Amino acid sequence: MDKKITYKLTVRLFTEEKCFGPGVAMLLRRVQELHSLRAAAADLSMAYSKAWTILKNAERLMNCKLLISSAGGKHGGGATLTEEAVALLDAYDGFCRELNAFGEEIFEEKFGRFIEKL
Amino acid sequence: MDKKITYKLTVRLFTEEKCFGPGVAMLLRRVQELHSLRAAAADLSMAYSKAWTILKNAERLMNCKLLISSAGGKHGGGATLTEEAVALLDAYDGFCRELNAFGEEIFEEKFGRFIEKL
Repeated sequence: MDKKITYKLTVRLFTEEKCFGPGVAMLLRRVQELHSLRAAAADLSMAYSKAWTILKNAERLMNCKLLISSAGGKHGGGATLTEEAVALLDAYDGFCRELNAFGEEIFEEKFGRFIEKL
Repeated sequence: MDKKITYKLTVRLFTEEKCFGPGVAMLLRRVQELHSLRAAAADLSMAYSKAWTILKNAERLMNCKLLISSAGGKHGGGATLTEEAVALLDAYDGFCRELNAFGEEIFEEKFGRFIEKL
């Protein structure tokens, strides 16, 4: 009986429409690591134009700038996160983490009979 | 300042693979209302074969029967939820509801600065 039942939470933020979720969060984290939106997009097998649109959309809907781009240079420019983007990622990660911790606490109580059957 | 930021949680359950989420939950609720898997699928603009596959998959992965089908009759048979399916829906709805209530409590603390900007 080594099967078990687990859960996965997805958190999406909305203003007038969807503005932030796991996709944007992952993209921002990759930019943080790779210092380039183009490299981040490639690393996620995402078209650069799509990555750019996702970010611009999030910036517009949340009314804050997320990326600082530096044009030119040997590697064709780079990108870093704004202080607000870092704060947003922290807020999102913290929100997800606390929800997951709370979920852990009540999961067995809710799904006990289904856990037992596996 | 009438824009505001909100969140939406999605909960998915997994055993060895994804076995339950908002889609199956909605399908089961429609069966509960309409007493027919075919009518439930149609109501959700879903192919009957897809609805059937989703349910069979959930039953297999969770090791419990979810639907009781009655064949024949004037309207071509019907379906009702098993006692376990009702319990599963209750557990899922309760889990989502409590997570959302907890999320409400901590959302402003986490996203306050972004809420203020809108």
